[in-house]
Amino acid sequence: MADRPQPARTARPAVLGRNQYGKAETRVVKVTRDGGTHHVRDLNVSVALSGDMDEVHYSGTNSHVLPTDTTKNTVYAFARRHGIESPEAFALHLARHFTDTQEAIHRARIRVEEYAWERIGTPGPDGARHSFVRRGRETRVAQVTSDGERFEVVSGLKDLVVMNTTASEFWGYAKDAYTTLQEDYDRILATEVSARWRHGWTGAAGAAAPAWDESYEQTVRHILTAFADTYSLSLQQSLYAMGARVVEHRREIEEIRFSLPNKHHFRVDLEPFGLKNDAADGAVYFAADRPYGLIEATVLRPGADARIPDDMTNL
Amino acid sequence: MADRPQPARTARPAVLGRNQYGKAETRVVKVTRDGGTHHVRDLNVSVALSGDMDEVHYSGTNSHVLPTDTTKNTVYAFARRHGIESPEAFALHLARHFTDTQEAIHRARIRVEEYAWERIGTPGPDGARHSFVRRGRETRVAQVTSDGERFEVVSGLKDLVVMNTTASEFWGYAKDAYTTLQEDYDRILATEVSARWRHGWTGAAGAAAPAWDESYEQTVRHILTAFADTYSLSLQQSLYAMGARVVEHRREIEEIRFSLPNKHHFRVDLEPFGLKNDAADGAVYFAADRPYGLIEATVLRPGADARIPDDMTNL
Amino acid sequence: MADRPQPARTARPAVLGRNQYGKAETRVVKVTRDGGTHHVRDLNVSVALSGDMDEVHYSGTNSHVLPTDTTKNTVYAFARRHGIESPEAFALHLARHFTDTQEAIHRARIRVEEYAWERIGTPGPDGARHSFVRRGRETRVAQVTSDGERFEVVSGLKDLVVMNTTASEFWGYAKDAYTTLQEDYDRILATEVSARWRHGWTGAAGAAAPAWDESYEQTVRHILTAFADTYSLSLQQSLYAMGARVVEHRREIEEIRFSLPNKHHFRVDLEPFGLKNDAADGAVYFAADRPYGLIEATVLRPGADARIPDDMTNL
Amino acid sequence: MADRPQPARTARPAVLGRNQYGKAETRVVKVTRDGGTHHVRDLNVSVALSGDMDEVHYSGTNSHVLPTDTTKNTVYAFARRHGIESPEAFALHLARHFTDTQEAIHRARIRVEEYAWERIGTPGPDGARHSFVRRGRETRVAQVTSDGERFEVVSGLKDLVVMNTTASEFWGYAKDAYTTLQEDYDRILATEVSARWRHGWTGAAGAAAPAWDESYEQTVRHILTAFADTYSLSLQQSLYAMGARVVEHRREIEEIRFSLPNKHHFRVDLEPFGLKNDAADGAVYFAADRPYGLIEATVLRPGADARIPDDMTNL
Repeated sequence: MADRPQPARTARPAVLGRNQYGKAETRVVKVTRDGGTHHVRDLNVSVALSGDMDEVHYSGTNSHVLPTDTTKNTVYAFARRHGIESPEAFALHLARHFTDTQEAIHRARIRVEEYAWERIGTPGPDGARHSFVRRGRETRVAQVTSDGERFEVVSGLKDLVVMNTTASEFWGYAKDAYTTLQEDYDRILATEVSARWRHGWTGAAGAAAPAWDESYEQTVRHILTAFADTYSLSLQQSLYAMGARVVEHRREIEEIRFSLPNKHHFRVDLEPFGLKNDAADGAVYFAADRPYGLIEATVLRPGADARIPDDMTNL
Repeated sequence: MADRPQPARTARPAVLGRNQYGKAETRVVKVTRDGGTHHVRDLNVSVALSGDMDEVHYSGTNSHVLPTDTTKNTVYAFARRHGIESPEAFALHLARHFTDTQEAIHRARIRVEEYAWERIGTPGPDGARHSFVRRGRETRVAQVTSDGERFEVVSGLKDLVVMNTTASEFWGYAKDAYTTLQEDYDRILATEVSARWRHGWTGAAGAAAPAWDESYEQTVRHILTAFADTYSLSLQQSLYAMGARVVEHRREIEEIRFSLPNKHHFRVDLEPFGLKNDAADGAVYFAADRPYGLIEATVLRPGADARIPDDMTNL
Repeated sequence: MADRPQPARTARPAVLGRNQYGKAETRVVKVTRDGGTHHVRDLNVSVALSGDMDEVHYSGTNSHVLPTDTTKNTVYAFARRHGIESPEAFALHLARHFTDTQEAIHRARIRVEEYAWERIGTPGPDGARHSFVRRGRETRVAQVTSDGERFEVVSGLKDLVVMNTTASEFWGYAKDAYTTLQEDYDRILATEVSARWRHGWTGAAGAAAPAWDESYEQTVRHILTAFADTYSLSLQQSLYAMGARVVEHRREIEEIRFSLPNKHHFRVDLEPFGLKNDAADGAVYFAADRPYGLIEATVLRPGADARIPDDMTNL
Repeated sequence: MADRPQPARTARPAVLGRNQYGKAETRVVKVTRDGGTHHVRDLNVSVALSGDMDEVHYSGTNSHVLPTDTTKNTVYAFARRHGIESPEAFALHLARHFTDTQEAIHRARIRVEEYAWERIGTPGPDGARHSFVRRGRETRVAQVTSDGERFEVVSGLKDLVVMNTTASEFWGYAKDAYTTLQEDYDRILATEVSARWRHGWTGAAGAAAPAWDESYEQTVRHILTAFADTYSLSLQQSLYAMGARVVEHRREIEEIRFSLPNKHHFRVDLEPFGLKNDAADGAVYFAADRPYGLIEATVLRPGADARIPDDMTNL
């Protein structure tokens, strides 16, 4: 999937490097009616295309440039034509389309955010069938990249805030002249999980694609379970436990990368007011904003390639 | 509860008007342990005090000024001393404290946001007892104002995003030379509910305070149910239906005000691509950001005073 | 300007209170060409209308409702027809239009944000004439409210971040059992100024309107000067100094209200590392986010009415 | 600078990949006093360390982990000890420290944001010497990465919003079945520049480091000038012109990457209201939020390596 362009002419004082363009953040909502029962998929779709694009950069010649407005139109038309089965399936349709139909486009990368809606259960006979409340827990994300032959599918989530109110310690760390931190044997461990996981499936002939929605739901479940069930001596340990559990239980996933801000909850010193504030007794904490520890790592299936980039959080 | 200060000296070229001060956004988390089962309340508390404050403004004399740092300390100490039974109960403790203990303070207003956490259910024996995931749906809010004798309690919520995918129309509206909108007989109706409701209880002797948590949960349920069950000819009609249902079912509530942005979902014109996009058949919509309609109104119990201000969304 | 609707029928279980509606955040940019030299005004306009609106709330009858889409169209058409001389002048046009032309509309409130652009000075002959960079310092705001006869004009700003690195102290404050703060005789004073000021002009016959742009520029200059030149014993004192200077120097302004978060800069304790960190010697500070002191007050011309509401920051 | 850890034991069901940790967003303000004249540097510093970190992930053994709290302390202590000459110089101090003093740390990456302050000029004798207003235009950024021997320095900016009100066209583009866009021969071109540029200097013996502040100021000037002076047939052309001008004029810079959202300004159709809205005559535009075109590319000095990653906007 390498597409670094060759410098066009050696006489140029500056040459074009890797580049891509497209319409970002097209907000598309697809309603499906099953009799009186409605279903909703609510996406934010960003298209990035690259290929034979030297001329538009060097001279403004747009003949190879499919307008970003057209990529937006395509998102809407495809939502109508193909429906939105899942973020991954929808992105696959789009990626294939752009590389297949535009000669100058050699690579397409489709990013999707999905916002989840729950039904409003009402006592009335019909309300629950077309009425929804936005769930607002995590945001699901997906990215499909294709050179027209192979696909790389990365799924993920962000904004998933979790907390253990005990079963977390931090001690035995390295110390230097700038270390003042006290060891802690019973602390809150909280983080906002951002994770991306790459599927082994590449669209090869005969290979069945994962069931994307089920894969997502189970992966989230494994992440939550590993976070909750790990007695943690460091956030790094919890990170690895989450990643390892996913890799072990989901055969379709080759690697997973996490970005975990340590949402510090500091036990407040209440001694000046004659109050104890022990964790064992139900303590009061200050939830800090900044600065925060930031722990990032990839966990891989043995033998798998590491392809998710270090800075994945825009993805 | 009037506290407008009198101009100190008529010779001043400018006089002080209404004023307040305090520490905003103290983030306090209280864990309660019930054996191995933990409970969490997670608040953002803002204190605003007013009273005999002319001198600090006119000359910088701070003798009447309890530092905002102290109000922050008080929040933490009270969380330990009294626990956090509910946002309203906690705010009542704080409001009473400041007016009771500081002679110069004649009025206290405590605002609270609460973030909800759900338990992570795990297969393991213990995880679910101290492991939580932030719910992320609406944010609960509360405000208590007191002059030391009476209390005014306003509860509410924000960020509650709801959508009906049908059962909404908009037609028969006024038209002028600038009107181009087409009538619509089957549209999406979506909004992000911000609401504040005032309780009748004022702390009078012998009057029992509402069960704040139950009141909140039931009020949210009534808002959601009314939104879902109303066949809507305008967002205003849905607003009134939500407010009326709350006032009818919750005797403790005197008035409720809503601020409802109309989160427009425009049906995309796909005719240029040879595609129909009828609502009846499951349409594709563009979810717009700006501009947006904004509908704001108060609904009152007959005879009740209207005390919630027009611009309540900071509350 | 009172427009509280009368309850329509006493038999209703709930009655409508104060209400308004309109299109919020219409983003309009007007370019004016003066030969090859261009000028830009870049606004965000929010329209809120109220009047005879009981029926749309009670029954969904829209016959009195000019669509919010129409108010958006009107913003664009008026920008073309009248140009944008200033936020205030533009809002006056719009407010007058809605109350004059729609019988059911008894009150219009127009809010405007303006984003400032500076010219990019370039060595080339033409670049500077149509090339701009967004200034990004404060955001200018304006609000015009009208009942069709009188106008109330409030101007203001937000996001103006200022700092004095000395000439600020804080001591001599009230202390109670929860006070741990140390007195400080040389601290940083920093705040993000949000201010709203009401003009005396109401559109009465024969009264000339202020020169809005000049009034704004001079008021900002007075706020900055007073902040810089005040040796401050409390942020309240600085607030009053800013307000008094405006009221003294700008005869067109009747009152001004400030909301001033105390952007705390805490001197870091470096003693554990064998380092002094005295203010007198050029110190290192931690710039804190939350919690923060919040100081709010109105300063009035003697005899003026106090009409700016306490919670003005949405304005 | 490769630091991918080797899988520790082949029997593991999942292996650790690339990882890093540290304290993010430490907000440090350094005041320097030059007699009564003060100077300010206001930074947001994020430290990311990596090295021999398998054990903390696999077992929670923290013996190689210098606490993130310590990296925070180091930021403050270094600001006092070394001052903050520039974001780049400060980051170089920090990067060198961590790799030099912690055996387990093999690589340090320091990211810095800087917020610019301008002096408040006042008529008074002293105000201008210690009083500042935050400039609020672009945010300066810098990143230093080191393996203890070589340094990679990337400088940059974000949030720089620019606009040409003419001298921009878009036509001659590729068309397919989903293309509805009309060609435009006089449009607004506006974008929010995010750019990162890599310096050739790597700390090799005898090589003098660039004058970081002057390099930054001149690079910004070249970006602005190229944007203003380019008659643009596409945003890609403007991007290349900006990058080429930087590479040509600043010998210290090897490559520069831009991420340029096309901040669309659509000319409003006012024909339904009997109004012309031609660009030549000073038009009215709708400033759209989403979706937006997004143009990203690197421009390199011929022969230079391309090291800035595609997704650089977190940097």
